[in-house]
Amino acid sequence: MPFSIHIGPNIRTSPYFEATVADGVRSFSVYNHMYIPGSYGDPDGEYDRLINGVAQWDVAAQRQIELRGPDAETLMRFLTPREIAGTRVGQGRYVPICDADGMLINDPVMLKLAEDRFWLSIADSDVELWAKGLALAKGLDVAVFEPDVSPMAVQGPLAEDVVASLFGGWVRDLKYFWFRETDLEGIPLVLARSGWSKQGGFELYLQDGSRGVELWERVKAAGTPFHIGPGAPNDVERVESGLLSYGADARRQTVPANPFELGLGKLVDLDRPDEFVGKAALKRIAASEIARRLTGFFVDGAPVPGIPAPLPVLMADRQVGTITEMIFSPRLERTIALGLIATEIAEIETGLTVEVAGETRRLGLSALPFLR
Amino acid sequence: MPFSIHIGPNIRTSPYFEATVADGVRSFSVYNHMYIPGSYGDPDGEYDRLINGVAQWDVAAQRQIELRGPDAETLMRFLTPREIAGTRVGQGRYVPICDADGMLINDPVMLKLAEDRFWLSIADSDVELWAKGLALAKGLDVAVFEPDVSPMAVQGPLAEDVVASLFGGWVRDLKYFWFRETDLEGIPLVLARSGWSKQGGFELYLQDGSRGVELWERVKAAGTPFHIGPGAPNDVERVESGLLSYGADARRQTVPANPFELGLGKLVDLDRPDEFVGKAALKRIAASEIARRLTGFFVDGAPVPGIPAPLPVLMADRQVGTITEMIFSPRLERTIALGLIATEIAEIETGLTVEVAGETRRLGLSALPFLR
Repeated sequence: MPFSIHIGPNIRTSPYFEATVADGVRSFSVYNHMYIPGSYGDPDGEYDRLINGVAQWDVAAQRQIELRGPDAETLMRFLTPREIAGTRVGQGRYVPICDADGMLINDPVMLKLAEDRFWLSIADSDVELWAKGLALAKGLDVAVFEPDVSPMAVQGPLAEDVVASLFGGWVRDLKYFWFRETDLEGIPLVLARSGWSKQGGFELYLQDGSRGVELWERVKAAGTPFHIGPGAPNDVERVESGLLSYGADARRQTVPANPFELGLGKLVDLDRPDEFVGKAALKRIAASEIARRLTGFFVDGAPVPGIPAPLPVLMADRQVGTITEMIFSPRLERTIALGLIATEIAEIETGLTVEVAGETRRLGLSALPFLR
Repeated sequence: MPFSIHIGPNIRTSPYFEATVADGVRSFSVYNHMYIPGSYGDPDGEYDRLINGVAQWDVAAQRQIELRGPDAETLMRFLTPREIAGTRVGQGRYVPICDADGMLINDPVMLKLAEDRFWLSIADSDVELWAKGLALAKGLDVAVFEPDVSPMAVQGPLAEDVVASLFGGWVRDLKYFWFRETDLEGIPLVLARSGWSKQGGFELYLQDGSRGVELWERVKAAGTPFHIGPGAPNDVERVESGLLSYGADARRQTVPANPFELGLGKLVDLDRPDEFVGKAALKRIAASEIARRLTGFFVDGAPVPGIPAPLPVLMADRQVGTITEMIFSPRLERTIALGLIATEIAEIETGLTVEVAGETRRLGLSALPFLR
């Protein structure tokens, strides 16, 4: 279904927008009220670059929420069930955020920039409003705001070579989720080893939105010897890798799910002495109610390129799960899916089906990830 | 620029989605994490139906946030600077919502369903997270959630005839923003005289998402004698009418603005004895800092159909305002715009310009609305 999207002032364009248009972007989605490239019209080439080469992604829509001030750490600790003590300045951590019911409402990477200064690199929900509301009502002395920060991702096995050619050999020693504040010939940015794929890579958190096109062009030029090309967060690779997508695999309004169901239980520290949002609910859930778990599915039959919305997983006529994303994997040469399945369903279960585009397809279960 | 948008599971489809596809929807945007139709490929016809006939809009993306419980009114009063005492069950009110800096973060219509039950029919930001965070940290006894409610708008001068033929003559006596809980042959809904145009009309707040296509078809059938057709919230009509669009004319992250600047000062009650979010900041602003005001602009030269992002308004080389939307008005036969202008600029000012697509255009100021 070839629907179009209008570029208008009610949704933000990214600082890289003009560069992505010049490089042939063909589709957009919207994420955190900002246009985000979806495809450059060459899905096979974009996938191949990510798996075998290096790709350049406009992920400015992965907005940052800054917590700054004397109570920044207090607020940060209240926001997440994860124990973040011991996190060093220059270190990132993946921190689920839950509401008072223990349901996931975002799953950002936290960057600790200073003892009193954190960024949350957010998925698609207004964490700024959530954190500001809590800080306000609790009377905390902390500013919560969206700074002028716009990430660009460089992803793929050759990403390190590209980034090292721009910043120097020290980047090769950067550990996963660690970062450094630096600049590229005067363009201020934070360089982190991170990114929404399992192919390795870096994110350049541009700190001056007026210089997006310049940064894009510099990375593109440095990547030319490595055959860099444009791309976007890749649903095929992320399903193969079992990478969670808040918005698809979980969303408060459509697929409400708690961290235990989503395989994030090890990030929930119920023994913490201090209070955090959702603690009582998560304790109750941990004691009794972990009804589902995130799993992979193999889908029989002809290739399915994608689905428009979550689909129920059936056993006989009973719903026992939800498929939240389905794609055709070129490397596995079969259709695979991610979703939630009732905890009591064993991996050897054979009676599972899903209705896709009017056809009943048989499903098998798979551990995650499908591929490393 | 004909960009496409992919329909995938990370953004919700509306309960009316299949019906709009069957009726030929051609473009979508995203609003409150849901696809919303943008156009059916006939902009002149869609405009004409709204101005002279009747149009049917999928505005399910105008989500509802429900406040329910003993402290629902307490939370509602805390959320908005408007005095809502005296609002009757069955009555709606337009209620700006500000953050602690007095900046607008949404401008919903509040529907009072019961003494302890309110809906906020929201613009494009996560009011659910804002209200839930405040309620949680203040320890209020109120549930905050998104109910299964999906509005459809019937707009235009013939809307009343269509809605009366479906529901009966009583709808002709419904006052603006008032509503009634009712049903259409068993389809539960709230019927309100409201909608995001100045052409008159109603909104049907469907309360069962599984029956969207059925409701769409019933309204379409009832509208056939009146030549009803599909449409979408119309930027041309809304600029002509001076109707505010949160997201375009104001957004916390891109065009931060307070209610006084946006012409909503009469909805801010600084004499209220009780506390509400932003009260201190709004008092300070009211005393001294109302730097800009919402205004209309006439744009010289060839027709401009739209702009991709806000544009600075210049006087000599100094920025004195921001244009937030620009369209060509068929009824005025000229290009017009909405935006903010420095308070000291008089309406007779002649030295204003804007750069549009590489050209310098002269601007004149206009009171709002352009048309009634």
